[in-house]
Parts: sequence; structure tokens; C-alpha cells
Amino acid sequence: MKSQPIQKAYFTRGYTISAAHRLHTDALSPEVNRLTFGKCNNPHGHGHNYRIEVTAGGPIDPETGMVVNMATLDAIVGKAVVARFDHMNLNLDPLFQDRVSTTENLCIAVYELLSGAEIREALAPAALETVRIEETENNFFEYSGA
Amino acid sequence: MKSQPIQKAYFTRGYTISAAHRLHTDALSPEVNRLTFGKCNNPHGHGHNYRIEVTAGGPIDPETGMVVNMATLDAIVGKAVVARFDHMNLNLDPLFQDRVSTTENLCIAVYELLSGAEIREALAPAALETVRIEETENNFFEYSGA
Amino acid sequence: MKSQPIQKAYFTRGYTISAAHRLHTDALSPEVNRLTFGKCNNPHGHGHNYRIEVTAGGPIDPETGMVVNMATLDAIVGKAVVARFDHMNLNLDPLFQDRVSTTENLCIAVYELLSGAEIREALAPAALETVRIEETENNFFEYSGA
Amino acid sequence: MKSQPIQKAYFTRGYTISAAHRLHTDALSPEVNRLTFGKCNNPHGHGHNYRIEVTAGGPIDPETGMVVNMATLDAIVGKAVVARFDHMNLNLDPLFQDRVSTTENLCIAVYELLSGAEIREALAPAALETVRIEETENNFFEYSGA
Amino acid sequence: MKSQPIQKAYFTRGYTISAAHRLHTDALSPEVNRLTFGKCNNPHGHGHNYRIEVTAGGPIDPETGMVVNMATLDAIVGKAVVARFDHMNLNLDPLFQDRVSTTENLCIAVYELLSGAEIREALAPAALETVRIEETENNFFEYSGA
Amino acid sequence: MKSQPIQKAYFTRGYTISAAHRLHTDALSPEVNRLTFGKCNNPHGHGHNYRIEVTAGGPIDPETGMVVNMATLDAIVGKAVVARFDHMNLNLDPLFQDRVSTTENLCIAVYELLSGAEIREALAPAALETVRIEETENNFFEYSGA
Repeated sequence: MKSQPIQKAYFTRGYTISAAHRLHTDALSPEVNRLTFGKCNNPHGHGHNYRIEVTAGGPIDPETGMVVNMATLDAIVGKAVVARFDHMNLNLDPLFQDRVSTTENLCIAVYELLSGAEIREALAPAALETVRIEETENNFFEYSGA
Repeated sequence: MKSQPIQKAYFTRGYTISAAHRLHTDALSPEVNRLTFGKCNNPHGHGHNYRIEVTAGGPIDPETGMVVNMATLDAIVGKAVVARFDHMNLNLDPLFQDRVSTTENLCIAVYELLSGAEIREALAPAALETVRIEETENNFFEYSGA
Repeated sequence: MKSQPIQKAYFTRGYTISAAHRLHTDALSPEVNRLTFGKCNNPHGHGHNYRIEVTAGGPIDPETGMVVNMATLDAIVGKAVVARFDHMNLNLDPLFQDRVSTTENLCIAVYELLSGAEIREALAPAALETVRIEETENNFFEYSGA
Repeated sequence: MKSQPIQKAYFTRGYTISAAHRLHTDALSPEVNRLTFGKCNNPHGHGHNYRIEVTAGGPIDPETGMVVNMATLDAIVGKAVVARFDHMNLNLDPLFQDRVSTTENLCIAVYELLSGAEIREALAPAALETVRIEETENNFFEYSGA
Repeated sequence: MKSQPIQKAYFTRGYTISAAHRLHTDALSPEVNRLTFGKCNNPHGHGHNYRIEVTAGGPIDPETGMVVNMATLDAIVGKAVVARFDHMNLNLDPLFQDRVSTTENLCIAVYELLSGAEIREALAPAALETVRIEETENNFFEYSGA
Repeated sequence: MKSQPIQKAYFTRGYTISAAHRLHTDALSPEVNRLTFGKCNNPHGHGHNYRIEVTAGGPIDPETGMVVNMATLDAIVGKAVVARFDHMNLNLDPLFQDRVSTTENLCIAVYELLSGAEIREALAPAALETVRIEETENNFFEYSGA
């Protein structure tokens, strides 16, 4: 088993959160907000079941046969992402004070939350590759870092 | 074709809406609200992609081969249900002033909205049978009338 | 095992066929055809992946633990339904000479094809309960017999 | 709210377990076992991700707007069903000493496990209606009691 | 908000069309056509629900938080692709006079239809990345340009 | 048709197998095995419906319009992968004598089984690109070669 070459593979795990949001920016007039965001600009907010897929890539550990332990990833994402956003209103989160709560920006926010030094160490030698979010079954967004 | 016996069939069509809600009732104390509704009681609301399946049943029209014309059903449900709830906050709707915005009660509300005399006539000889709502991929609710 | 009471259960198995069709009836004028069937009346036909779910119900055989053997059902449906309609044009089938090729009527046709004496014997003591067809992920049709 | 009539609705919740099994009965000869169960009779077993859908029906509580509290159902099914069968070999469970581990019989077993007096009381005034299990995306089984 | 670095993300949106086609080429003999295309060569055509996923990539607009406005993409794809192919027979489209109507070639055709100068300008600074088409739930095809 | 430029596209086809496995390695103590693999280390094994997606990429044949003939791919994967693993216990396969039967390693094993000289020739000018396996609806693994 020791002589097996190092082979890079990818592990993706899906999480689901329910959250409210409203697309609106003070940088634009009410009229342009309505034009830009359509019914997503409705004043009282609406919501989604967001499905968040987190992909980590790395060598397969020759002893365990794993890229990253699923329990480790669940603990990290559960604490940093699910606990923070599930059953919450995204617009009230500090991360969305300076950016509109689009799913593009939610991808960025989740990617950043999973990129801190402590989490990078916990995942090593695997590393975060991509965050992909399904807003509805017809709208997907993806971010893989700058 | 005229001699074909009348055969009853069912047509189900799915619609998706995104809406915010918060589970809370003034009939209970804040503590019991939290205990009963868990994180669904979070004060700022959260949201879902609700998938609403509407089933109509009736004889197959021997000329058109249909139970009910899909365009007719889309117009009815689009106006009475989708336009009313999509990208809205359910708790602000008059229908949820007297009942908690659970998906059980959303089933009832949709069923009632589709049961008015005008809609019954437009669907005849078919009739509304069942409203089934998927709140998440693991939670379904169904109501078929009293 | 012998003393186990007879318990009725249901087995549903899904099959997928790809077929072309055109919604049109000579009983109506070209204008009414277009009005009734919309773009499904386009003269050159179009097509669908139909997912056909066949439900059989009956006592669980105390020896095999089955309602009906899956291989038996596959052989029956494969021969009577899939081989007949898959990669075919429904409008050219004799079963659609007298009825429009709507999915409602396809339900009826499949139900009838699975109701002959020979098939009833092969399924006994189970019996065909329901034919349900998904035309698209948002349109389902169901027929359970007259 | 008090004057709202009692309306019966249904709540279905899905659970997923992974389990190994082998279809085999000592009541039949090895040859008939192979003929009856096909590759499911392979001596070393195989497995599935079973998706178990549990449906409870009952009046909607006018105060909470619920048929049954999801946390209550999760606790019941988690303890009685998921903890018992998930990541286990069904054939080693006492419930399958006297019956083949088909999904039909797994439906019966789950239904029975959810029908004890203690659970009936915990669910009241709602009641267990149906257990439906997806063995694969093309095979579903359903049992609603004797 | 202005100081936020430009971050590239991807937006994928799914569209569904129903279309008929027949796999056949005059460049091959009838026998080789049957051998090559199997039942897809049946003379009267058959059809599919094609799910077309269009991916656009680009910087997230710091004001709107979007890669590309969904309404813009819907208008472009609706006019150039859905209106052209939905409920049509692909073999009759000029784009398939010189190529077989396989899903590989449908990917190319959709990619080309979305690559004209006018559309490139409308999407800028985002750009078309990939066209992915699901022919059935088990067959996917993808094209990302030459 | 001859003058059409060579365009590279990708074809992905999904296969489903049911198999049992147990995560365990003799290189670790029983305690560390339990800690590392959790309930996947249960001594009697459990199982999954694995969905295996095989992606081949290559030029679109200008005559047939295909990257690779589906019947060819089905024959190759059916013989080399499905017949080998479906309804089997992965741990008993020689390929898992030296590596733990994680889905990461199953990806590697499937990739290797599809990389022999004979299969490479049969697929040419297309080539195997990626093997992606869904262990459950929330866990995906992917391998694209060393």
C-alpha cells in the first residue's frame, strides 16, 4: 500500500440552507433597483433553499483512502457556514453590509469563510477548490478563488 | 372516437415560488415559540423555494385528449397563487394573519385560493383534487380538502 | 414464515422512453387546433423523454418477499410498452388513430396494453394498479382504470 | 384562529440509510434462489442507499399550524429506524430472520417499528399513514398497513 | 464597495426544450445508418426533453453583485435558442442540413447561436463559457468552444 | 460537411451499480478504524447505489456527429465496470486488497479499468477524461488521472 503513487482526487459535499434575502443596493435609486433586480427587490424579502456544494481536492491518503474526512469537512462547514446562514436573513449579516446578497456574492462569502488559516490547516493536504451554489434548480453559481 | 368511454385521469403540474416566512404565533409565549418552531422562529425570517404541485382530476375530453388545458391551469395558478406568493414574505399576506405560515397552512391557503366559484367553473368538468407542497427535498405536505 | 399474515404492498417501477408526437385532431379546424394545443400543434412534431411509472399491488409472497418479480415486470413492460413506443412517433401507432397523442391518452394506452388476459395472469396474484407518466419534470399524468 | 375548522393534512419526511443485504431464503434450493433473485442472490451481499419516506396524517393544530412536529418525527424515526438499519447489514437484523430482506419486507418492518403504542401516542392526534421506500431511482415500494 | 477586488465567477442557467429528431446521414448507406445510430435511426423520428445549461463567466459587478443579469440572459437564450428549437423538429432546421442532429452537434449549434457579435456585446463583460445539454438523465454533452 | 472544422466536445454517461463495502484497513488499530471511518466501519458492511459518470472527450466525427458511440461506451463500461462491481461486495474484489474501498479509491479503480490499451483503442480518437461517482446525493468524488 505504501508504494501506491499519490493520486489527486476531488471530494464534493452538498449542504442545504434556507435563508431570506432582498436584492437592493443604496448605490442605486429605487427605480434602478427595481429595474435591475425585478421581483427580487420586493421590499419585504423572500427566500430560498440554497444548496451549497463545497469541493476539496488533494492527494488520496494511502492509509485511509480519503481526500478529506467527511466528518472534518462537516464540522468545518457546519460551524463556519451552515450555523451562520441557515434560517437567517442574509441581508443582516455583516458580510452583506457592503455587497448585495446575490448568490454570486454568497459564493464569495462562503469561499472566504472557508479560506481562513485555521481551516486551511485542518483541511491540509487537501485544499478548498470551488464553492458552487444552486439558488433554484435552474440557477447555479460557482467561484473558485481569485 | 365518440364511442370511447369516459375515463377519469389526473393531471399534476408543478410550480416553484421563492418566499420568506417566519414561524411564530402570538398565541404562545416567546419561549414556547422557540421550543415549538426551533430555528424557524428566528426573528428576521428565512426562506424557501417551495415547489407547489396542483392536481386536477376529471374525464379525458374525447376531442382534445386532455383532462384540463395546461395553459388554462397555468393562467389560473399563475394569477391566484404564484403572483401572490412568489418573492413575497408569507407572514405579510392577509391569509396568514390568523394562521402560522407553516407549509401545512400554505397547502390550505393554496387549496382555498383555487376553490373559488370562478375557478371551479373554469376547470370544469375537471376539479381540483390535491395540493402538495415540497418545502425542501425531504419535507412534503399534502391537502385534499375537508 | 408460514404464519405471517398476508400483507398488501405496492411496487412501482420506472421506465423511460423517447418518442415524438404532435397534438392535432381532424375533429377540429386548424385554427382551433392551434388555439387548443399551442406549440404542441407545430406541424413537424416534437418529442419528449416520457418517464412511465407502473404500479402493481398485491400480497407479499411469504417465500420470496416480493409483490411481483422485477424481472417479470420488466419483461412484460419491455415487450408491451417500451419496444412499442421507444424512439417511435406516437401519432403513427394504431392506438393513436382515434385519439390525440396527449400524455393523458398515453396513460390510457399503456394501461390497456398492460391489462390483457395474458399479462393479468403473469402478474397474479398482483395486479396493475396505476400508470403514471411524467411528460416533463413539471407535468405528471395518472390513470388507474375505469 | 379558534374558529378555524379542523382540516386533515399529510406530512411526509424523507430519510436516507445505506445498508447491505442479500436476497436469499433457505425455503428454496440454491438454484431456485438464483433464478428468483438473480444477481441480488450473489453470496457476498450488495447494498443500497434506501430513501425512506414516512407519511403521517392528521388535523392541523390550530395553534402551531402543524400536523406533527418535525423534530418529534425525526427523533422517533431516527431512534427506531435510522439508528437500527443505517450502515448495517439487513440480513443480520432479527426482523429479517423470518423474511427475505426485500424492500417490500423492509417497508413492512419500518411500518411495524413505527406502530408501537409509545410511538402512536407520541404522534397523536396524527397517525402513521404510509411507508414508501425508494430502493433505486426506478424502484419504489409502499405499504400502508394491513 | 468600490474598493472590492474584481472576482470572476460563473453563472449557469438551465432551459428545457422538447424537440423531435432523427439520427441519419445521407453520407452513409441505410445499413450503416441503422448500425451506427440504432433505434435513433427509426424513420419517423422520436424526441427528447433536452435540458440546456448555459454558463457565462465574468467579473462580479460591484454595484449589482451579478455576473450577468438573469433577465438579460433569459431574453438572449429565449430568442436565439428556445424559440428556435422548442417543440420543433431539429432535422428541419437549417443548422442541421449539413450535420447530423446528435446532441453533440446541438451543443455546437447552441454555442454558435450564442456567439454572435450582438450577443457578445450584450453579455459583456461576461462571456459565454460552456453549453451543456442533458439528452436524458444519463447522457450529457458539453462544448466550450474551439 | 467535410469542410467543418474539428470541434472537441465531451460526452458523459451515467451508470448505476449497487454494491456493499466496509471501510477498514489492517494498517490501523480497531480503535483508529472506528474513529476514522465512523459507522462505515460497522463490521458487517453496508451498501450504496453508486452512480458512476464516465466522461469521454474528443473531436466530433463529421460523419456521425458523435464523440463516441453510446453503444460502444456501454459495452466497454458494462463489461469492465458494471459486471465487475454491480451487486457485489467491493471489499472482496482484488482491486481493494491493497486499498480501502472508499469512493475515492473506487474512482481510481474505475479509471484504471477504463485505461487499458484495448479500451483506449476502442474509444480513439476520443479518450477517457474523468470518472465521477455519486456515493449519495450529497457526496461526489472525481478523478481525472495522475
